Order: sequence, then C-alpha cells, then structure tokens
Amino acid sequence: MKNRKKYPDLIQLGQNIRNLRKLKRFTQESLAFKTGIDRSYIGGIERGERNVSFLTLSTIAKCLSCDIAQLTKGIPCD
Amino acid sequence: MKNRKKYPDLIQLGQNIRNLRKLKRFTQESLAFKTGIDRSYIGGIERGERNVSFLTLSTIAKCLSCDIAQLTKGIPCD
Repeated sequence: MKNRKKYPDLIQLGQNIRNLRKLKRFTQESLAFKTGIDRSYIGGIERGERNVSFLTLSTIAKCLSCDIAQLTKGIPCD
Repeated sequence: MKNRKKYPDLIQLGQNIRNLRKLKRFTQESLAFKTGIDRSYIGGIERGERNVSFLTLSTIAKCLSCDIAQLTKGIPCD
C-alpha cells in the first residue's frame, strides 16, 4: 500500500459519508451506480484517502438527499 | 474568455466564500497570503469557476474561522 499522508478532515468526511450512506440503505455499489462515481473511488473517499472535489461531494449529497453541510459535520474550524 | 460550463452549486459556494471573507474583513490578497492559495485561484473560486477540492475548502474555512458547513449553506440537496 503506497504510503499516503492522512488528513483528519478527509477521514471525518469519509466517515460521515459512510454513516449517511448506510443510514439511507445504500451499498457502495448502489451509490456508485446512482452517482456515476466509480465504486472503488467511493471506497477511497470513505477511507479518507481522496481529496474529493466539491462537485463530487455535491453529487453524493444529492444522491443521499442531504445537505453538503451534513457531510461536513464534525470537521473543526480551529 | 474560454466558455466554461457554469455550475449553480459552485456559484453559490463562491458567493458564500466572498460574503464570509468580507464579513471577516479579508481582502482576496490577505486571504491568499494567509492560506497560501494563489490570489487569482481565490478569485476563480469566488466567481464559481473552480471545482475546488475539499482540503482547499477546509483551509479557507479554517482561515475564516468558520465551519465548512457555513460555506456550503444554501446549496440545495434536491
């Protein structure tokens, strides 16, 4: 596994997306199908390994019927 | 000017960033200096022309002492 720098904000974002995905009863496959985003890329986002773009985030939020703000909850602004 | 597709979500995000920047009495130059992000790139973000990455968004939010959620307010989840 390539040694990738870990960013706490990306890890928190990934956990938020995973939790909301499960809450809304999506699998990674069904979320990938509905958003058109590659399933392995979604896995990378959820592990906090992808510096995801705003439009991709917006696409995921729309698919999960939530605000982007809900995906970014708990990410500190210190 | 190259004909760039316009994304309403990016335009709303850009306006939110501009409003908060002004509220916190930053110029584009001082925000650029403090974040290390190029001033012209900040201008592009505020005009809704840049599909900004999550970490860049997080850097801007931290500099403006606000949550990322505040930057994404008013972006619909229809």
